[in-house]
Amino acid sequence: MKLVLKISGKFFDEENIESLIKLKKTVKQIISENNRLAIVTGGGATARKYIKIARELGVNEAHLDLLGIWASRLNAYLLAFILSDVSYMKVPENIEEFIERWESGKVIITGGFQPGQSTATVAALVSEAIGADYLILATNVDGVYDKDPRYYTDAKLIPRLDTVTLRKVLESSQSVKAGTYELLDPLAIKIIERSRIKVVVMNYKRLDKVLDIIKGNEIGSIIEPA
Amino acid sequence: MKLVLKISGKFFDEENIESLIKLKKTVKQIISENNRLAIVTGGGATARKYIKIARELGVNEAHLDLLGIWASRLNAYLLAFILSDVSYMKVPENIEEFIERWESGKVIITGGFQPGQSTATVAALVSEAIGADYLILATNVDGVYDKDPRYYTDAKLIPRLDTVTLRKVLESSQSVKAGTYELLDPLAIKIIERSRIKVVVMNYKRLDKVLDIIKGNEIGSIIEPA
Amino acid sequence: MKLVLKISGKFFDEENIESLIKLKKTVKQIISENNRLAIVTGGGATARKYIKIARELGVNEAHLDLLGIWASRLNAYLLAFILSDVSYMKVPENIEEFIERWESGKVIITGGFQPGQSTATVAALVSEAIGADYLILATNVDGVYDKDPRYYTDAKLIPRLDTVTLRKVLESSQSVKAGTYELLDPLAIKIIERSRIKVVVMNYKRLDKVLDIIKGNEIGSIIEPA
Amino acid sequence: MKLVLKISGKFFDEENIESLIKLKKTVKQIISENNRLAIVTGGGATARKYIKIARELGVNEAHLDLLGIWASRLNAYLLAFILSDVSYMKVPENIEEFIERWESGKVIITGGFQPGQSTATVAALVSEAIGADYLILATNVDGVYDKDPRYYTDAKLIPRLDTVTLRKVLESSQSVKAGTYELLDPLAIKIIERSRIKVVVMNYKRLDKVLDIIKGNEIGSIIEPA
Amino acid sequence: MKLVLKISGKFFDEENIESLIKLKKTVKQIISENNRLAIVTGGGATARKYIKIARELGVNEAHLDLLGIWASRLNAYLLAFILSDVSYMKVPENIEEFIERWESGKVIITGGFQPGQSTATVAALVSEAIGADYLILATNVDGVYDKDPRYYTDAKLIPRLDTVTLRKVLESSQSVKAGTYELLDPLAIKIIERSRIKVVVMNYKRLDKVLDIIKGNEIGSIIEPA
Amino acid sequence: MKLVLKISGKFFDEENIESLIKLKKTVKQIISENNRLAIVTGGGATARKYIKIARELGVNEAHLDLLGIWASRLNAYLLAFILSDVSYMKVPENIEEFIERWESGKVIITGGFQPGQSTATVAALVSEAIGADYLILATNVDGVYDKDPRYYTDAKLIPRLDTVTLRKVLESSQSVKAGTYELLDPLAIKIIERSRIKVVVMNYKRLDKVLDIIKGNEIGSIIEPA
Repeated sequence: MKLVLKISGKFFDEENIESLIKLKKTVKQIISENNRLAIVTGGGATARKYIKIARELGVNEAHLDLLGIWASRLNAYLLAFILSDVSYMKVPENIEEFIERWESGKVIITGGFQPGQSTATVAALVSEAIGADYLILATNVDGVYDKDPRYYTDAKLIPRLDTVTLRKVLESSQSVKAGTYELLDPLAIKIIERSRIKVVVMNYKRLDKVLDIIKGNEIGSIIEPA
Repeated sequence: MKLVLKISGKFFDEENIESLIKLKKTVKQIISENNRLAIVTGGGATARKYIKIARELGVNEAHLDLLGIWASRLNAYLLAFILSDVSYMKVPENIEEFIERWESGKVIITGGFQPGQSTATVAALVSEAIGADYLILATNVDGVYDKDPRYYTDAKLIPRLDTVTLRKVLESSQSVKAGTYELLDPLAIKIIERSRIKVVVMNYKRLDKVLDIIKGNEIGSIIEPA
Repeated sequence: MKLVLKISGKFFDEENIESLIKLKKTVKQIISENNRLAIVTGGGATARKYIKIARELGVNEAHLDLLGIWASRLNAYLLAFILSDVSYMKVPENIEEFIERWESGKVIITGGFQPGQSTATVAALVSEAIGADYLILATNVDGVYDKDPRYYTDAKLIPRLDTVTLRKVLESSQSVKAGTYELLDPLAIKIIERSRIKVVVMNYKRLDKVLDIIKGNEIGSIIEPA
Repeated sequence: MKLVLKISGKFFDEENIESLIKLKKTVKQIISENNRLAIVTGGGATARKYIKIARELGVNEAHLDLLGIWASRLNAYLLAFILSDVSYMKVPENIEEFIERWESGKVIITGGFQPGQSTATVAALVSEAIGADYLILATNVDGVYDKDPRYYTDAKLIPRLDTVTLRKVLESSQSVKAGTYELLDPLAIKIIERSRIKVVVMNYKRLDKVLDIIKGNEIGSIIEPA
Repeated sequence: MKLVLKISGKFFDEENIESLIKLKKTVKQIISENNRLAIVTGGGATARKYIKIARELGVNEAHLDLLGIWASRLNAYLLAFILSDVSYMKVPENIEEFIERWESGKVIITGGFQPGQSTATVAALVSEAIGADYLILATNVDGVYDKDPRYYTDAKLIPRLDTVTLRKVLESSQSVKAGTYELLDPLAIKIIERSRIKVVVMNYKRLDKVLDIIKGNEIGSIIEPA
Repeated sequence: MKLVLKISGKFFDEENIESLIKLKKTVKQIISENNRLAIVTGGGATARKYIKIARELGVNEAHLDLLGIWASRLNAYLLAFILSDVSYMKVPENIEEFIERWESGKVIITGGFQPGQSTATVAALVSEAIGADYLILATNVDGVYDKDPRYYTDAKLIPRLDTVTLRKVLESSQSVKAGTYELLDPLAIKIIERSRIKVVVMNYKRLDKVLDIIKGNEIGSIIEPA
């Protein structure tokens, strides 16, 4: 099985050693079961800090995005070094470099690629390029909800949906928009659909359950391309 | 003034020596008036030919896009060599390479950057990165129309519009969608808006009028970011 | 066994899906029998088209050759993507890059390297660098003839010859010169001789017979270095 | 005059917009007076944060240093984008890349180069490579003191000293060691001596006085190679 | 076991074919016993010749060092080509390139990395980056002596010592300083200590005994990090 | 005027400081008169030494040539550093890198490019790529002779000839073949002819006369493309 794991920048903000140890174990387990894995990291608080300072000094949007990309690459190097016995030690800086490094058989870890592009889109492009079976979005919620769980106590997690439904949830329900949009922007969905990639949304606090979530045996959402 | 000129792949399909000579003159005129220029080329028929063959052989979408990108780079090299006394002779392959080459003071010519991305988006990213005054889309129609001019004899060219109006034209009028969409996809419009780049749509057959079109003295459409 | 397969640009001009499927099968068969393989592609019609346009616009010979080289790289990427499960996905741009990529154990596919150099010479250099057992020239004729088969109905294919004889055929017989010269220019022959590489000339329409042709059991010419 | 400005990582930790504006003005003033400038940035708190996390997870020393280096490059990109109209937009990753970019005539901004090496040594190497007139160390103290000013109210700033005296201060006075050592480690001093580079130690809060400090007209220390 | 072998430039000056054949055999034996190996080469007489000429012509210290580095890379390429069936054929030019190439599983051969840095330090950095079990310094003496064996007939080889003792030997005994210093400069010792790398000093004339020397069964010195 | 200066490897073997000082002066004079200059260096004795050792150890022809190329690049770096205030400090490793560096406006210095190719061919390719007015071959004889001046006291220097005559001299007169062949091999002549580059053959001992030799006012041979 070929998997792409997109880890939200928030994961790194928590600076939680236990989470990183869990991630390390999960990656080794995935690999040991004869799967291949690519990881895409978000930029998180480091990205926001640098972008904020630079914006105040009049830096343009393309360069602000590049600062966020360099911050996400710092997170990528952190993972590459933690996983050094199974990972590739150079973070690719664009899809062509990614494709070349993928040949190595190692876990390839990448941050952002270019301005105007979310790390979700990077993860979708990477999934497409390697023909991934699943793109796993590890974030700070348990999956896709019908309403924003932060505001509605009766919000329900949707365990299975397709991208048509996903788009409707995103458009109809203003309240969940922001959070979910971060998961999958329109370009990422388009790529998922054209290459028919299955997507899993899950909480990064339960990374050790990822293979069970794929099987539908643990809490999370599975999105099928329409 | 800093200008980005996006030339449709169709321009190259015509293999029209006169058009290329006109392009050469136009570029030299633009430069001589103390402007700086970047050019982005589409892939055209060469791209479509390679994509068609590869698709029949089961190549994935990411790699199909890469074939189109390599074809657009071939068009970019053609221009770079034709313009060799003012152009930079290496075609950048991503925005970071572009930004570095732009330092040289030369005309930088680029094709596509990565899968899942139109050359219009490349041109918008390039415009943003250099703080372009105008992004010029040179294509095979005279500008943005209220209806598809291929089907409606009463279609009218819109000389000035903003991106809100542009989106409406694109959404309401199915008939013009395909053609115009090629000019500016949603991501390109988003970049144009966030960095407030003015866009000119014009016919590549009248490239020699480009500076007049910018001034509003010749046929073409000028799009303001909303 | 280490093999280098040089595929004439004409192969790509035919845009023949069946031929490409046959090539794919042949490559996989060669690999499966524990051989290693490098492929060198010609530029074909795409190269000629771009060179013709550029020449009319006064582009110099070095840059004309570079356009041909970029076109041959497009053919190389086409093959790399078609063969994606066994091939290396980055086309090397010079012999040092080739040598480094060869380490990967994959099928390495390359187009031209530099101006003033035929793709036959590229194939000879590649053969020399990896210590190839055979350099296979797949072209649109069945082998080396004593006379030009297009003009002489009594032309006979020479199944075995050495490079001294090859040079004589090339020099004495004006009529076959053009066609054969394309196969092996003087520099390519010099490299073949100095590194004692055996050469097979065969028709790309019968690529599936390549291992039999090497054994001398099928139609083709085998050239021994003198 | 050719100047190398090494900015302590602490400068970036303060996230002080005013300081960055002052730095921007200072750089433009230096350039406008026909001087050339290279800047070397420390890693600061971002570096320490990533190193701390990675160390707890058993990452080796070489990779810990690389995380610090990537953090310092993030600071370098921040400056490159803030100074985009005079700076080179690509941060060099080793001395050979630095030397090549220096040809551009722009302000080159670099972070760390490699493990086991302080950014002070990077700054010394850069100074040597370009034949700098002064290496300016901008830090959070006003210069070199005879005692540690944090503990001794009678500590005196030494306005002029040579590297022999500097070594003595560093060795004899335990209390100032840590802080000053950060300024100049033994390898950096060795490079300064062998290439006879003059060094200025100053407070980054008064960057606008740098040209006066060089002249000896403002508070700071000037170190002559022995 | 992971080993780093640093070969003194003097080894190459002797142009001794027998020594190179012995080296080739030793490398293959090391590999065949399931160890991994990196090799670092000194510059030797070629380096000194180019540095001498350039110095007379006023070239600066950074560039002089680069000439020495390029000469050491020439020695590295010589070994890479001699060992072509087990070695990586591209000589890395800095630690980041080294780390990436190490992924290949091949013997990686490198010369110097940057000015102001001994090849011993390069070897220490490489050892640290890969977590080497032993750093082997192959030179023209049999190990570390208590006195300079060239001047004192009663000089005794010290078979085991730690880095504290090593520093004392280097400092107290002027006579051996020059020679030994070449083996391990202060920065190299610092890296060895912080990453706890064991060091073997041995004669390159007995390279075939290297595995025995590591075990303490043959003449040489083993240095433990203090 | 655009000039390419090819300096024989023998020039470097002499390790003659006076010659290098003269070269430095000549380069500066050429530049100061508003000409542009590229320099191509041979490998000389360093190349021969490394090739000899490697050949005895069974290294293949492609890799032997690469050793020669790396040696020629060492000579190129020597010149780049000696000429550091007017030269580009990175030696290009292939024609595409050369073309890109040429944009800088500096003196670009290059060694060999690839196996199977003389440095004369490199110089011809470089001349073609930049549209050189003259390719100057600086060697250890004064020009092209009708007979080998080492053996025939009545040998006469031919001040002006075309490439047809040159080929005849090379073919008819066995005795001069070796020496002259080194100057211009068949591929180099082919490139000179197709791009109509004028060639000057002169003695590197009189480099300071180069502009006079071009004018025909000093001893040397001028070869016109036929």
